[in-house]
Parts: sequence; C-alpha cells; structure tokens
Amino acid sequence: MPEPKHFITFRDLSLGELKAVLGRAAVLKDERARGAYRRDHLAGRSVVMFFSKNSTRTRVSFECAISELGGRAIVINMGDSQWTRGEPLSHTARVLSRYVSAVVIRHTKEAELAELARCSRIPVINALTDERHPCQVLGDLLTVAERLGGVEGIREQTVCWIGDGANMLNTWLEAAAVFGFALRFSCPPGYLPDGGIMSRAQAENPAVRHFGSPAEAARGATVVTTDVFASMGFENERERRLRDFRGYQVNAALMAGAAPGAVFLHCLPAHPGEEVTDEVIESPASAVWDEAENRLHVQKALLEYLVPAL
Amino acid sequence: MPEPKHFITFRDLSLGELKAVLGRAAVLKDERARGAYRRDHLAGRSVVMFFSKNSTRTRVSFECAISELGGRAIVINMGDSQWTRGEPLSHTARVLSRYVSAVVIRHTKEAELAELARCSRIPVINALTDERHPCQVLGDLLTVAERLGGVEGIREQTVCWIGDGANMLNTWLEAAAVFGFALRFSCPPGYLPDGGIMSRAQAENPAVRHFGSPAEAARGATVVTTDVFASMGFENERERRLRDFRGYQVNAALMAGAAPGAVFLHCLPAHPGEEVTDEVIESPASAVWDEAENRLHVQKALLEYLVPAL
Amino acid sequence: MPEPKHFITFRDLSLGELKAVLGRAAVLKDERARGAYRRDHLAGRSVVMFFSKNSTRTRVSFECAISELGGRAIVINMGDSQWTRGEPLSHTARVLSRYVSAVVIRHTKEAELAELARCSRIPVINALTDERHPCQVLGDLLTVAERLGGVEGIREQTVCWIGDGANMLNTWLEAAAVFGFALRFSCPPGYLPDGGIMSRAQAENPAVRHFGSPAEAARGATVVTTDVFASMGFENERERRLRDFRGYQVNAALMAGAAPGAVFLHCLPAHPGEEVTDEVIESPASAVWDEAENRLHVQKALLEYLVPAL
Repeated sequence: MPEPKHFITFRDLSLGELKAVLGRAAVLKDERARGAYRRDHLAGRSVVMFFSKNSTRTRVSFECAISELGGRAIVINMGDSQWTRGEPLSHTARVLSRYVSAVVIRHTKEAELAELARCSRIPVINALTDERHPCQVLGDLLTVAERLGGVEGIREQTVCWIGDGANMLNTWLEAAAVFGFALRFSCPPGYLPDGGIMSRAQAENPAVRHFGSPAEAARGATVVTTDVFASMGFENERERRLRDFRGYQVNAALMAGAAPGAVFLHCLPAHPGEEVTDEVIESPASAVWDEAENRLHVQKALLEYLVPAL
Repeated sequence: MPEPKHFITFRDLSLGELKAVLGRAAVLKDERARGAYRRDHLAGRSVVMFFSKNSTRTRVSFECAISELGGRAIVINMGDSQWTRGEPLSHTARVLSRYVSAVVIRHTKEAELAELARCSRIPVINALTDERHPCQVLGDLLTVAERLGGVEGIREQTVCWIGDGANMLNTWLEAAAVFGFALRFSCPPGYLPDGGIMSRAQAENPAVRHFGSPAEAARGATVVTTDVFASMGFENERERRLRDFRGYQVNAALMAGAAPGAVFLHCLPAHPGEEVTDEVIESPASAVWDEAENRLHVQKALLEYLVPAL
Repeated sequence: MPEPKHFITFRDLSLGELKAVLGRAAVLKDERARGAYRRDHLAGRSVVMFFSKNSTRTRVSFECAISELGGRAIVINMGDSQWTRGEPLSHTARVLSRYVSAVVIRHTKEAELAELARCSRIPVINALTDERHPCQVLGDLLTVAERLGGVEGIREQTVCWIGDGANMLNTWLEAAAVFGFALRFSCPPGYLPDGGIMSRAQAENPAVRHFGSPAEAARGATVVTTDVFASMGFENERERRLRDFRGYQVNAALMAGAAPGAVFLHCLPAHPGEEVTDEVIESPASAVWDEAENRLHVQKALLEYLVPAL
C-alpha cells in the first residue's frame, strides 16, 4: 500500500497538486449546479470526522462533500481531552485505518493531527486547528480564482489581511509562500501570527509584509479579508479584544483604498459592525456566500484526490 | 430560482396541497409495506436537522424519511441559545441554502424559524416549536383518514382534545380552520391555547369550541386525543400540573361518551395512568402505533413536495 | 411476521448459526479487501444505535457495517437514565419497530435490552453492557479462526483470560460453553466474573477453569487475552485496581508459558505498560489490529443474518 497523502498544512501538497485540486473543484461545482450531485468515488466507504469544537459550517460542508461523493460521514464529537480514551494515538490511527477511508479532524492541538497522520494508512485532513485552517483558505483561493482571473491568476493577486494573527493568517502566510502571491497584513500590537510560520513565509516570498496600519496594508489589494475579533475559545477576552482591535475594521473607507474591483472575503461567522460593516458584507465586492459554498467544492476535490480510487 | 415553500404552520400550504401530501403519504406507505424502501428524490442531496430538544421519535422518523428518499440527514444538536454562534440568522440561512436541500428544525422559538425561512432559498420545516407541531398533526390526520373514511372524510370528523393548551392543540386549531372539521377541546383553567390562534380558528370555523368539562368535549367525538400533562421543558411544574389536570384523563368512561368506533390518538411519549389509561392505549380504539409510523410517511411526502426535483 | 432474532448473548443463537455468521464474515472480509464495499442488504433501510457510553471503536465499526450493507445508522446518544423519556420501554420498542430494521444498543443495564427485545418486531443487538460484550468476542473468535485452524478449529483452542472478571470474561465464559473450547482464567481476588454465568458455563463445559495464578492459567494456552485494569465507568477505582491487579500483566514471560504460536488478543483501548506490555502488543503473536477490524466483518455478517431480506 502506498503512503497516504495528508492535508494538514499547505506544505503537504505541491503547488501543482493544489492547483489541480482547485481546478477539479471548479468542475465539480459546475456539475453540481446542473443537478449532478452524485458521484461514486467514496461509494460504500466511510470517513470519520472528529470535532472538538462546535462547527455548523465545517460539519455541514464536509458531510455534504462526503455524501455527494457517495460516502458516509461518521461524526464524533469529542471533548478536548481524552478523545482517544487514554490509548496511544498510534493505536487509534491503526484501528481507524482498518475501518474508514479518511479522517477529518477539528482539534485544538495540531501536533496530535501530525502524530495521527504519522501512524495512519489513510489521509488525515485538517478541518481547523489553533494553528491553521487550510480547507478554508483553499476555498478562499477558489473564490479568488473565480472572481479574478482563474487558478493561474492567483499568484498575480495582492491579498490583504486585517486583524487577528491566528490560524487564518498563519494559513494565508503559507498559501502565499506556496503560490507566490503578495500578502499585506496588519495586526494590532500583540496579535502577530506565529513567528516561525511568518518568518519562513517572508524568507520564501518577499511580497509577504506586515504594515502598521490597516489602510497601508489595504493599499492596492485585490483581495481584502478578515476574521472576527474574538474567535471561538477567546470569548472571555472579548472586551479586551474589542478595545485592542479598534481601527481594524474593514469598512467602505478601507475598501476604497484597495484596488478597483477588489474582492472582500470572510470565513464566517461574521459579526457585522465589529470586524466588518454590514455595508461591505452586502456590497458587490463581497464574495462571502460563494466563499462559504466553495468550502464544499474544494473539500470534495480534496477527498477525491487524497482518497485512492478503489 | 422560484421562492421556496416552507412548512412552519398549516397555513403555509393550501388545503389542496395538504390533501395532496396526505394522499401521497398513503401511496408511499403502501409501497414501503411491500418492501420498496428506496426512492431517488433526494439522491446525493442532504438535509440539515437542527435540534434544540432531545427527540428520539422526531429524529428517527425524519432521518428515515430523508434516507428512504435517497438523501442524507445532517443532525446538529444545538443549545437553545447561540445556535448560530452569534451570526445573524440571515447569514446562517444563506450559507445553508448553498449546501443542503432543506432545513428541519426543532426549536423553542418559532419566530426564529420564520426569520430563517424568510432568508432561505430552501424549504424550512417545523419539527416542533413551543407554538406548533404541524408534522405531528399531519401524521395524525393521515391516521384519521386511514381509520375513518379517507382524506376527503377528514372534514366530516369531530376531533376532541383533552388537556394542555400547548403546541399540539394550537396546531389542531389551525388544522380545524383549514380542513373544516369540528374541534371540541377542554383544557384545565389556566391552560388554554394561544389566544390569537384560538380566536382566529373560531372566527373561521364555528365548530371549534371550548368546553368546561372533558366529558362534554368528548360527546360524539370520532377522534379523541391528548398529550402528557407536563411536556418537555415543563418537568419542574410536574407536581402542580398533576394537580391541575386531575379529571382530564382519557379513560374508558370518557371514551364511552365518544361516537361508536371513535379513534384514540396520542403523539407519544405517553405516561399511562396519568393523561390516559393503559386500557385505552391498548384498546382497539387506539391508533397510536400507526400514528407514530405515519409521522414517517407524511414527512416523506412533505419532503418530496417541498424540495424541488432536480 | 416471524419472531425477530436478537443477539444479546451468545445463547440467543445456536452453535450452527454462530458458525455460519463467522463463515460469512470471512467471505465479506475477503470481498471488501478486494474493493467490493457495497452490498444491498439494508438498502434504503435504517438502524438505530443507542449509546449510553462514549465509544469510538464500537460506533465506527457499526456505522461502517451498516453503511457498507447499504443502510443508514441513526446514532442517538442517551444519558444513562431517561433514554426513553419516561415512556414504557414497550412503547419505545413498538415505535422503533415501525421505523427501522434493527436496534444496536450500548447500555449499562442488560435487563433493559431484554425488555426492549421482548416487545420488538426487529432484532436487538447488544453492543456492550455491564454484563456482556458479545460482538467483541464474536470478532475475537473470527480472529482465532483466521490464525489457528478455521471456524471448525475454534473448539480445539485453549483460551486464557487474565484480569478483570467483567463483561468480556462473562462473554468468553458463554462462548466457551457454546463452542466447547477450553477456557482458563485468572482474576485477582474480588474480581471474579458473574457467579451465575460462571457456574453455568462450568457445568456445561468442564474445561472452563479458574486458576489462582496468571502463569498457571496461561500454561499451554493457544490464545491469551486481557482487558484494561479499570474499564469505562471504573476510572474512580483506578488507584485501587492498579494495586489489586499487580501481577496480572500479560508480558513476554507470561506469553512464554503459553503454547508455541499462541495468539494475543485485546479488545482495546489498551494501556501499554499496565495490563499488557508494549512488547507483547507489537509482537508477531499480537492480532489486536486484525481483531479490531474483525468487529466490522462479524457485525456485517450478523446484521445480514438477523435482519430479514426484503
């Protein structure tokens, strides 16, 4: 049996593979829009989905992806600890490899995903960790491709990130390193992204740059994106963050400084009036509903690519 | 895309549509009894089911309905609050409309279902709220039709409700208004149904009447039905309710006053010895197991009707 | 409609039936290994799975089994109490019989499974109780058959159980009574299996014997098996049990006293270094991953056998 391919970070696949997945997602999207929902790639097979955080969007998009490929999602809600009931992760990995065709996991600790992958005979897919959110950024890139010149045009874009330097920005940094597009980001003091991820991305792609002010970061951007001020798990810091993120809102003024025809993205849920105005979300520049839908299509393409055909 | 049709109250569909759904349910039931479980209407498609209360019967009957139509149920247990994780309901509605073919929702606050429906491109189905339980009463009407003269005979019936004026009675009131059958109800003082629903039904159908005593209400009824004294969410009022509902039990004496051949219905779970005697539940007059089964068939017919074919 | 067949204990099926299920499981396993995942036995039909304890392995293996047979698992997590929401179990049984094709249940109180079965028109399958774990031991027997001379060779084996006299050992006792193999067990003082099950098994099969020391029990065994010192629900006794079970570890020394070519089994999760050494789990004698996989195959065969074809 060949080694399984995983998708825990953008670096797990080559640029060519990532582009192929995006291209395939576009084809699947087109077919679905014409009513062709059913495929056989996972027919009769199952995929385990572990969730340690609630997630309507990720669960629904992945469950749909799996069942539209003919497979079955087995959803296991786990507490953050003890999800393996005290057994070594290597045991869990070996047993699951006997039953199912892939593991989709949303978990705080990305190191545990890597350990699970190391011992698995089946693909492990990162559905969100404290460090990264690669399926989301893959869906974002499909949206960018749709609006701005196709998959080959991704590397021509200038993406601007405003706000928290958490898992979303970490993932954008790696995507920028792999695809070669410009990434201009502006985070409040104390909210910079992971140091290792940032410096590696900057070493590989000199167009990855931090700016002191959001307006500066947005200048000339073809894509502007952000996330809520206080993500899940940080609700108790909400008051402090509302204060710290003052000035980091994506609003009409900020969008006016971006390139003409710039696209606005948001991974949702959004809190209109906080990190972004309702005006921007509902503007023609906003691609957030397509972006949410694209989660489904890239995840289908990813599962097709990672899970070997029978 | 045409506007989606919803089923939040009996008033969302016309009498002709409701009769067509009941007729179709009878056909689907007959085919299933002959082993023809599989249909393709939802093939490859998914339906989200949100539950804010535990529910074995509703969950199982809906999951079966969806999968027997070839589709896949995605079940999301939500706490009563925060089920949208703070995002506007309009966002949730728009995103779900991209992924799935319908939303089935069991939630205390019916106003949130209406808001969800307002922003959805897909049908929203009420699987129980504090105000209404239309899928249950639709199943009840199929049972009445089976036992007493078919769908066209429904408007000839005299339905008697004994007990709590909550979501079940509210729904019977609307069904009586739409179908035109007589509805005689008797609730303990302080447990009358929703005032607006009651007065509108009485204005539209003069055969909708409240009676001071259960015996009077049951007189000549062709259908007698009730519910537990303390529904889910009211367990803490149990002692008081047991007192207040004294005399509101459906027993052999009460059934003796109904029409010959009268049918007993109960949406279950039942607490034998409280709101109804075991003797009545196990009597030939009782149609409660058929009634439970009929949830499945009407829900299948409803999904077929509300979700457009591909 | 014929009476349904259940699988709550090994005594619910005849020896001939059990052997047929094992034989069929081997065929299904072979076909699956060649990529033939899809069967139609449960096509369009659903199976309810009730869980009152968390269970990754049991859930995943059963959900895969059901969906590989073309059916759909409806998983209901229940609190230990109130899983029927106060209704008589006979009501739950009758309603479920209308909706689904079988019930798989993991619940502390086995008496409730028996009552459920008594009132059901559909098979009830024991997926673990405080008393028994028959699906696990069925999978273990398939593993024994694979490694040591086939299904007909099972009765020639000498199985050695080391450790807690709980549901696993109870089930081995009944399996030994039905299949006729030798069972040598050694439990710490105070941890003997259920008295009634033990004495009945010993009365029926004189080769069922308790030994004061693990080494004695293991002498000449062709199969050695154990379980964690503190199963789910006994975590609060962990400290005391670690003390009481000292000396009841399966390690290389113990295995050396078994027959040449003896097989090691463990139902997992394992706690390496406690009830078994990592050396033994990772040795060629260990069949624990095949054993875990075999849960899937025997459960498929069992569902095929218990659920009548359409």
